[in-house]
Amino acid sequence: MQITVVCEQNGAMLSPEGKKAYPEGLGSCLKGMLEEAGHNVTLVTIGEEGAAALTDEIIGGTDVMFWWGHWYHGKVSDEIVAKVADRALRGMGMVFLHSAHDSKIFKRLLGSSCSLKWREDGEHERLWCTDMTHPIARGLGEYIDIPREEMYGEPFDIPTPDELVYIGWFRGGEVFRGGCVFRRGAGKLFYFNPGHETYPTYKLPAVRQLLRQACAYVAPALPIKGEICCPHVEQFSVKE
Amino acid sequence: MQITVVCEQNGAMLSPEGKKAYPEGLGSCLKGMLEEAGHNVTLVTIGEEGAAALTDEIIGGTDVMFWWGHWYHGKVSDEIVAKVADRALRGMGMVFLHSAHDSKIFKRLLGSSCSLKWREDGEHERLWCTDMTHPIARGLGEYIDIPREEMYGEPFDIPTPDELVYIGWFRGGEVFRGGCVFRRGAGKLFYFNPGHETYPTYKLPAVRQLLRQACAYVAPALPIKGEICCPHVEQFSVKE
Amino acid sequence: MQITVVCEQNGAMLSPEGKKAYPEGLGSCLKGMLEEAGHNVTLVTIGEEGAAALTDEIIGGTDVMFWWGHWYHGKVSDEIVAKVADRALRGMGMVFLHSAHDSKIFKRLLGSSCSLKWREDGEHERLWCTDMTHPIARGLGEYIDIPREEMYGEPFDIPTPDELVYIGWFRGGEVFRGGCVFRRGAGKLFYFNPGHETYPTYKLPAVRQLLRQACAYVAPALPIKGEICCPHVEQFSVKE
Amino acid sequence: MQITVVCEQNGAMLSPEGKKAYPEGLGSCLKGMLEEAGHNVTLVTIGEEGAAALTDEIIGGTDVMFWWGHWYHGKVSDEIVAKVADRALRGMGMVFLHSAHDSKIFKRLLGSSCSLKWREDGEHERLWCTDMTHPIARGLGEYIDIPREEMYGEPFDIPTPDELVYIGWFRGGEVFRGGCVFRRGAGKLFYFNPGHETYPTYKLPAVRQLLRQACAYVAPALPIKGEICCPHVEQFSVKE
Repeated sequence: MQITVVCEQNGAMLSPEGKKAYPEGLGSCLKGMLEEAGHNVTLVTIGEEGAAALTDEIIGGTDVMFWWGHWYHGKVSDEIVAKVADRALRGMGMVFLHSAHDSKIFKRLLGSSCSLKWREDGEHERLWCTDMTHPIARGLGEYIDIPREEMYGEPFDIPTPDELVYIGWFRGGEVFRGGCVFRRGAGKLFYFNPGHETYPTYKLPAVRQLLRQACAYVAPALPIKGEICCPHVEQFSVKE
Repeated sequence: MQITVVCEQNGAMLSPEGKKAYPEGLGSCLKGMLEEAGHNVTLVTIGEEGAAALTDEIIGGTDVMFWWGHWYHGKVSDEIVAKVADRALRGMGMVFLHSAHDSKIFKRLLGSSCSLKWREDGEHERLWCTDMTHPIARGLGEYIDIPREEMYGEPFDIPTPDELVYIGWFRGGEVFRGGCVFRRGAGKLFYFNPGHETYPTYKLPAVRQLLRQACAYVAPALPIKGEICCPHVEQFSVKE
Repeated sequence: MQITVVCEQNGAMLSPEGKKAYPEGLGSCLKGMLEEAGHNVTLVTIGEEGAAALTDEIIGGTDVMFWWGHWYHGKVSDEIVAKVADRALRGMGMVFLHSAHDSKIFKRLLGSSCSLKWREDGEHERLWCTDMTHPIARGLGEYIDIPREEMYGEPFDIPTPDELVYIGWFRGGEVFRGGCVFRRGAGKLFYFNPGHETYPTYKLPAVRQLLRQACAYVAPALPIKGEICCPHVEQFSVKE
Repeated sequence: MQITVVCEQNGAMLSPEGKKAYPEGLGSCLKGMLEEAGHNVTLVTIGEEGAAALTDEIIGGTDVMFWWGHWYHGKVSDEIVAKVADRALRGMGMVFLHSAHDSKIFKRLLGSSCSLKWREDGEHERLWCTDMTHPIARGLGEYIDIPREEMYGEPFDIPTPDELVYIGWFRGGEVFRGGCVFRRGAGKLFYFNPGHETYPTYKLPAVRQLLRQACAYVAPALPIKGEICCPHVEQFSVKE
């Protein structure tokens, strides 16, 4: 499959903690994780200029798109958001990571504010699986531990997920619907809360396996649809 | 309650059929229907100039907003759509009628294309209730007949409804999820397919009762929220 | 409304902790809580003899039934379970408390095993509201604290709830979908996990308010239906 | 996979219409359909003696069970129903066909009455797909025509399906949620309404493909679980 990883390069990633967590860069870490599964992966970097590097050609060739963003959500143009949303509704899979809950494209596809509670204390998160048979959770046991993570807590303002796969427990007293599948148009999207840029969450084997399984799960079920329209139709000849 | 009916005035309404169906205007018919229930109703007309008449003051004072549009969807500004969506997510109820399935604000809140099949043959629609206990369907029996209606057919590209209340049957061979509740943020919205501008559907007693009940059902559960934010929170002191 | 509280009298309730938590008896505590809301409440006790005291007359006159059981689940006869299930499907509301997750009647209505993890350590549970607009959660804030409770943890083997209202956080590391609404037939049922018999959970004002609101929410939407059947119907005369 | 087809042999199947529709027997037709997909298939016949032929050994070796029954629902013992339900909750897939909506095992797993409207007029059913990306509907187009079928109509008293894949339209004026997936425990089940014993519905290529795809879809996601229990667990050592 052709995967595109859209990932921000921000100041926190250049801090000592950020560099220690991902010496190669968070985006490169995600790219490598997916290449290990045999995919062709294009890395697109978001920065002050938004997602200008996400060309029509890249969007138009993508089967599954990963999205990690935070500081530069506001810099991503509405035009690019519209193009990505259009392809997602025509069948492209999407995986939204961590602070991508507040990206324009996530909110565009879900329709709600996607607001949540947060606290950056590097505390223990335990993600409990609420559906052990789900393909995204295959082989990962009843829970996944993230030793240090930014807390995201309820109420999480999302529409009811089509499939709730993980609920996170935080040391400091919160819970969070942290692994959710939503269906939109011909596409599926998965949201997963772990992955603050200063903790090496995406180095954890369980998380890597989970995200590769998520990639496979949201992959297009059918060839990507052409233009979406509202067709006029004739009456079919009813057999009496 | 303070209700706002946003309704288009289009050319088809001025045709002989349109005038015969609603001599007083479709928007006025809806307004009267809601006034009979004791609500204060403001009628806002959409036309070539879009929904410019939908001022901040009107939006900010509305408990439940009805929306009927068709020809002029593209004329409604993104700015107004954003304001209405914001209030809907903070708790305002919404009722979307007929061709409002293709309005910017409906697609903004649902996230999908909301495409469907259609045929304008004035054929019989029978709406079957799939949840007889639902407050919107109270007292209306197992089905509602619409003698002549525009056909809207599946596949209807909507997210899975939170509550599926009616499925329409059409004489010409189609079915349609025509009565659906969706929850978004602190608000609820209801979609109802009948109501083409050249058939007097909104004169039918059953439809009037249903829409008044829909208005009550999507009414704000709580006072409309203030600004939506992602609050930073401290750890609570865990009692050992 | 006519409420029936079906509550077990077991050995743990007669222990010093049990007597301290509920000197008047847990069942009487629940009865009093509902009488404060103006309901007529009948208390039916389950014991070694099962639920023999739950007569046809009581079942047939109940609008909402509360169920608390643990030791004597196996003593409740299949015949009584069938009668209660029948009335529930015809519209009677039900509220299942704590260890009632393993009662025959709960599993009968849900269809799954309703298994879960547990630990009796008297630890802090914080129940987070995932839908602040839900009538059951009205006025109760973002979370409810239970100072000492038996831990119930995921995976909780239930069908996907129709409405997920609360997720519990436990001091010891677990999460639990502890406040769930399910619709079955013409009836609604609510499950709520807190309420071990040796902790005075049902004395907490927030819990009492929540359960009274749950009672109102699951109350019959329509008059209780008569016998459920599969009616044979004629073709309706289709208007061409 | 090891498939078991549990199929009734009833009097209507021995009528001229029944014999014409399925000269080889309806059960054998289903068996052949699944063998074509490379499965090992055991046919178990239900009759006056109920499902006594459904031994523990057969149940215990089944990956996916098909169920077609009508006249003899009441003859199937509660003991066998309990054993099948247990295996279904531990992961076995199930496909329920036509009048199996009223079987003990279907109602046992769903929890509701599963009542519906019906009329045996041999009328045209058109099944509309409401999720073109669903694996069960793959390659089958927007709708499937059944030239002559028994009418099953709403209200259909089922819990909200986890996945609604098909809605049927009937010539005589009804609609029906005729293709539904439900998840229960570790298992999945699919209900499909067409297949009255006097019409050769299971000879239609589209129906055969759909049912083979349904078989694949409900196949166990994981090895069938052992005994279901409510495990006691210790606190995990929380890292401060």
